[in-house]
Amino acid sequence: MTLLGSITGPGDVRALPASALPALAGEVRRFLVDRVTRAGGHLGSNLGAVELTIAVHRVFDSPHDVVLFDTGHQAYAHKVLTGRAEGFDGLRRAGGLSGYPCAAESPHDVIENSHASTALSYADGLARGLRLRGSNRRVVAVVGDGALTGGMAWEALNNLAATDHPVVIVLNDNGRSYAPTVGGLAAHLAELRAGRRPALFEALGLAYVGPVDGHDAVAVEHALVDAAELGRPVVVHCVTTKGRGHPPAERDPVDRLHAVSPAGSAGGATWTDVFGAEIARIGEARPDVVCLTAAMLDPTGLGEFARRFPGRTFDVGIAEQHAVTSAAGLALAGLHPVVAVYATFLSRAFDQVLLDVALHRLPVTFVLDRAGVTGPDGPSHHGMWDASVLPVVPGLRLAAPRDPARLREALHEAVGVDDGPTAVRYPKAKAGADVPALRRVGRCDVLREEPDAAGLVIAVGPMAGPCLAAADELAGHGVPVTVVDPRWITPLDPELVKLAAGYRLVLAVEDTAATGALGGRLAQALAVLGAPTRVGTYALPANFLPHGTRDEILRAHGLDAAGIATAVLKRLGRHGWHGAGTTGRAQGRAGREPDANK
Amino acid sequence: MTLLGSITGPGDVRALPASALPALAGEVRRFLVDRVTRAGGHLGSNLGAVELTIAVHRVFDSPHDVVLFDTGHQAYAHKVLTGRAEGFDGLRRAGGLSGYPCAAESPHDVIENSHASTALSYADGLARGLRLRGSNRRVVAVVGDGALTGGMAWEALNNLAATDHPVVIVLNDNGRSYAPTVGGLAAHLAELRAGRRPALFEALGLAYVGPVDGHDAVAVEHALVDAAELGRPVVVHCVTTKGRGHPPAERDPVDRLHAVSPAGSAGGATWTDVFGAEIARIGEARPDVVCLTAAMLDPTGLGEFARRFPGRTFDVGIAEQHAVTSAAGLALAGLHPVVAVYATFLSRAFDQVLLDVALHRLPVTFVLDRAGVTGPDGPSHHGMWDASVLPVVPGLRLAAPRDPARLREALHEAVGVDDGPTAVRYPKAKAGADVPALRRVGRCDVLREEPDAAGLVIAVGPMAGPCLAAADELAGHGVPVTVVDPRWITPLDPELVKLAAGYRLVLAVEDTAATGALGGRLAQALAVLGAPTRVGTYALPANFLPHGTRDEILRAHGLDAAGIATAVLKRLGRHGWHGAGTTGRAQGRAGREPDANK
Repeated sequence: MTLLGSITGPGDVRALPASALPALAGEVRRFLVDRVTRAGGHLGSNLGAVELTIAVHRVFDSPHDVVLFDTGHQAYAHKVLTGRAEGFDGLRRAGGLSGYPCAAESPHDVIENSHASTALSYADGLARGLRLRGSNRRVVAVVGDGALTGGMAWEALNNLAATDHPVVIVLNDNGRSYAPTVGGLAAHLAELRAGRRPALFEALGLAYVGPVDGHDAVAVEHALVDAAELGRPVVVHCVTTKGRGHPPAERDPVDRLHAVSPAGSAGGATWTDVFGAEIARIGEARPDVVCLTAAMLDPTGLGEFARRFPGRTFDVGIAEQHAVTSAAGLALAGLHPVVAVYATFLSRAFDQVLLDVALHRLPVTFVLDRAGVTGPDGPSHHGMWDASVLPVVPGLRLAAPRDPARLREALHEAVGVDDGPTAVRYPKAKAGADVPALRRVGRCDVLREEPDAAGLVIAVGPMAGPCLAAADELAGHGVPVTVVDPRWITPLDPELVKLAAGYRLVLAVEDTAATGALGGRLAQALAVLGAPTRVGTYALPANFLPHGTRDEILRAHGLDAAGIATAVLKRLGRHGWHGAGTTGRAQGRAGREPDANK
Repeated sequence: MTLLGSITGPGDVRALPASALPALAGEVRRFLVDRVTRAGGHLGSNLGAVELTIAVHRVFDSPHDVVLFDTGHQAYAHKVLTGRAEGFDGLRRAGGLSGYPCAAESPHDVIENSHASTALSYADGLARGLRLRGSNRRVVAVVGDGALTGGMAWEALNNLAATDHPVVIVLNDNGRSYAPTVGGLAAHLAELRAGRRPALFEALGLAYVGPVDGHDAVAVEHALVDAAELGRPVVVHCVTTKGRGHPPAERDPVDRLHAVSPAGSAGGATWTDVFGAEIARIGEARPDVVCLTAAMLDPTGLGEFARRFPGRTFDVGIAEQHAVTSAAGLALAGLHPVVAVYATFLSRAFDQVLLDVALHRLPVTFVLDRAGVTGPDGPSHHGMWDASVLPVVPGLRLAAPRDPARLREALHEAVGVDDGPTAVRYPKAKAGADVPALRRVGRCDVLREEPDAAGLVIAVGPMAGPCLAAADELAGHGVPVTVVDPRWITPLDPELVKLAAGYRLVLAVEDTAATGALGGRLAQALAVLGAPTRVGTYALPANFLPHGTRDEILRAHGLDAAGIATAVLKRLGRHGWHGAGTTGRAQGRAGREPDANK
C-alpha cells in the first residue's frame, strides 16, 4: 500500500500525478473491502464512490471548501483520504469511527447525516451564508440518485436553481439506493446515461455536466473543473457501479451488500424475520392488505410479501412523506396499507401521519423496524423518538411487542383496526423466545405477580426479558416485584393506570427517549388522581446517543437486568444493599443512577 | 342568479350548454366575492379556480370520480357547485362550512387539507387502490403551482410518472402561492406559459397538455377530455389569475387578499406585529441574523425585516423541510437564522429540526406563529402539536411569551443562544397589554403570590391573562392561588419543579394539546420525587378540534377565566361552591369538567 500509506490528507491526493490515480483508487478499494468485511458497515455505496471522492479532493480544497456527502454512508473513501484510515479498525464500534460523516472526527466533516436528501439544503444554506459573509469557500455536495427521490432534495434543487451560487452537485448515479431507484427520475437518469433527452435539471434551471464515467477519476476531475468554472449551481452526473471492484457486491442483485455485518455475527430469527413471515401470512388471508416501503424492501422484511404479492407491494423510493400519504390514498380506496419503515425515518412524515392519516381516521398500519437503540449507526439512526411523538397523534394506537408471539398478535390486531392508524415498533435485534403471560388485565399482560410486591415494573416491549431477570434477582433477595407488559403503549390503558395506582413504586422500563415515554404519560394520569405512587421512567436519556452495539448502549444506560434491579432498589431506598447473588457489575452500579434514569 | 340557483350538483353543471359557462362563472365569482368579503376566508385563490372547477365537474363525474383539491383553500367554487352554496353564510364559523374540503360536509370531498402538496400522493394511492379493486373511478387532483415547490409533491410526481394510472393533474398556475412562487420551477412554468422549452414534467415521464387559459372553461374542458383519454398520468397546465374578476384582489401586489378577515374585525397589535417590529430592530443590531420563510413572508410578520434587509431574507417557497435544513447550512456558515413559520407547518420538518439542527447544536431560532388554537381554519391548522413534539428534541429551548414585552425578551434570548435551537410560540391573536411580574424564580416569572395559597396555577404564554383573572375571582371568594409564568416551557426549569413540589395542587394552563404538554412533563418530574402534589394539565384535548373563533374554542374547553376558576375549585373539592360574585356562566360550569381537562 505504498500510495495510500503516503496520503495524510487531501493535499497529498492533489500532489499525485493523474497517472497514479487508478492505483490509488485500487488501494482505497482493497482497503475498504478488507476493513468493512471485518468490521461491518456500508460497502457497496462506498466502493462506488472511490474515484469521484479522489477527484473531489483534487479539485476542491477541503476543509476550506466544504464537502458534503448525502447520504453519509458513501463517505468512507473521504474518511480514508482525510487522515482517518487507521480508525477503520474501530469502524462503527463504541468510541471508534462513525459510519457517517462526523464533525467531531475531522474538520473535513461538517455534518453528520444518515437520513437521505439533506445535503442539497445544507449546501444551499452554506452557499448563501458564505457569500453573505464575504467568503470565497466553495460548496460541493455528493448526492446519490436514490437521495434525489426524496422531496427535500427537490425543494433544495428548486431553490438552488434560482441562485448564482457556485454549488457543485456531484450526482453519484449508481441506479439504486438500497433497491434500484424508482420512478420517473430513475427512467430519466437512464435516458441521460444513454446520452438521450434534454436534462430535467436544465429544465429546472440548473447547469448540467455529463454523463461522466464515475470510475475514471481523471474524467471526473476534468468535469468538476469545468463545473466549478460555471459559477452557478451545476449537476455533475457521474455514472457509477455500486460495489465496484468487489465481485460479490457487484453481482448481488438485491444488494445484500448495501451494508454488511461484522464477520462472525450469530444467526437466529430477528424481529424483522418474524414480521416478514407473518405479514406474508396475513397477505394470504387478507387480499385488502397492501405493503409500502421507502426504498427498504428487504431490510424491513417485506421481501417474502413482495414475492408472493408483487401487485400489492409498492416501493416509493426514499420518500417517506409520499409513502404515508399515498397509503392514506390506498386506505381511501378501501385497502389496508402497511407501511414498513425504520422508526428513525418516520420522523420524516410526522405531519402526514397526523393530518393525512389520523385526521381522516384512515386504517393505515405503520411497522417501525429499528425502534429504540439501533446500535452501530449512531445518533441519527437510533429509533428513540417515535414512541414520544406518535402518542401525540389523536387516535393512533402504538404496540411494542415483547416476543414473536406478541408481534404476530399485534400485527393481527393492527390490521383489524378500521377507524384510524396503528403502529408496531420493535428493535434491530434477535426476537428471542416467547415470554408467556400469567393473565391479561385490560390490554396488559401480567408476566409476574407477587402478593406483597414492593413495586410494579412496567416492561415495555423487548424490555420484558431484562425486567423478568431483574425481578428474579430482586425476589431472591426479598424484594418481590410484579411485572406487567402494557402491549399497547398508546393510548394509555385505564386498567394500567388503575393497576399502577395500587403501588407505592412504579418503574416503566422503556427502550426509547424518556421525554414523552409511557412512564411520563402514566405519571401525568396518576398526578391527576393525586395517587401517592412514585413513578419512574427508566428509559434512554433524551439526548443523542453515540454508536456502539445495542447491548452496550442499553447496558450503559442501565437497561439490562442488573441495571433495572439496581434502579428498583435505589428507589426503595435500599441503595446500600449488597445482595449475595448480585453480580459484581450490579454491585458496582448500586447507588449510582444511570445518567438519564431518574 | 338564475343559473347558479339552478345548480344542485355537478350533474346540473354538465347539463348546461357550453355557451352558458361564462355566465355561470360570473355568477359563482360574484357569489364568492360577496360571501367571502362578509364571512372572511380565502378569496384570491378561489376566484382564480372558478372556470377550471366548472370544467372539472363537466368532464368528471364526482363523487364517482374522485376530485381532490390541493391546497384545500381553492375549493370554494367546488363547494358552490356541489350543493353547498347556502352554507356560505356560516363559512368558517363554528358549526358552519369548513374553509377546506371536508368529508363530513359532502360526498364530493374525500380529504380535508390545509397543508399543501398532499393531493398528488393521495391521488397516487387512490389510483393504485382503485385499480387493485377493479374500480373504474378516475382521480383528478387540482394543484397550485405554489404547492409544487413542496417536496412531497415531487415524491408523488416521481411515483406517478412510473405508472400508467389515469390520474389527471390540473395545474392551477397563477404564479404564486401566498407570495409569488419561487425557484427554478417558477421560472420553468413562466417559460411554459410563454410556449417555450420542453416541459419538466415530460422529462420526468409525465404527459403534458397545455398551457390552457384557465379562465376559459370550454378550453379547459377540452383539455381535460384530451388528458383523460391518454390513460396515463398527465399534467393539464391551466394559466390563471389569482383574484380574477375582483379588481382589489387582482391588483394587490403582496396578495393581501389571499385570505380576508370578516368585515368589522377590530384593530390592535397582534403577536405577529410585535414580532415583525422586534425582529427588524434585532436585524439592525445583529448583521448575522437572517430570516427565512416558507412562502409566508407577510403573514409571519417578516415584511418589515425583508424591506430593510432584503439580502438577508429568504423565501424558500412551500418547502418547510428545506427551510429548516438550509437554515442549518446558514448557521454552519456563522449566521443566526430565524425561521418564521406557522406552528402547524413545522410538523412538516420535525426530522430536520431534530437531526439537521439539534444534533448539530446549531443556533437556529424558530418563530411559531398561529400556535395553539388558531380559529376558523380548523383541525388541520390549529398549532396545537408543536409544544408536544419540540420538547422531545434534545437541547431545544421553547418559549411561550405572555405579552409583548416577554415576546421581545424571548426573541433576544433566543438569538443570543449559540449552541442549539430555540423556538418561540404565540397565537394568531391580539397581543394585549404587558403583564408585569412580581419577581423571577429560576427562569419563571411570579405573576401573583399568595402567602397561604390553596394552589399554584402555571400560566403558559397567553394564558396569563385568563389565569390572573381566574385568580382574582378565586381570591374574592377566599381561595387564594399563586400564579407563575414559566416563560420557557422546555426544558423544564428545575426551579419550577421545586416550586410546584411545595403545593398540594398545581394546575398548568396551556393553549396546546394535553399530551406532551408542560403539565405532563412536570407531573413526570414530580412523580420521580414522590411529591404528594396533584398536577393537572388544563389544556386542549388531544383531539382534532373543529373550526370556530379562537375565543369560542378556548371557552368551550374551559380555557377562559371562568373555566380556570372552576377547574381549581373542582380540584379542591369545592365544586358545589357558588360564590356571590361568580358569573352565571362560571356557576353554570361549576361541577362540569371540560371534556379534555382532567
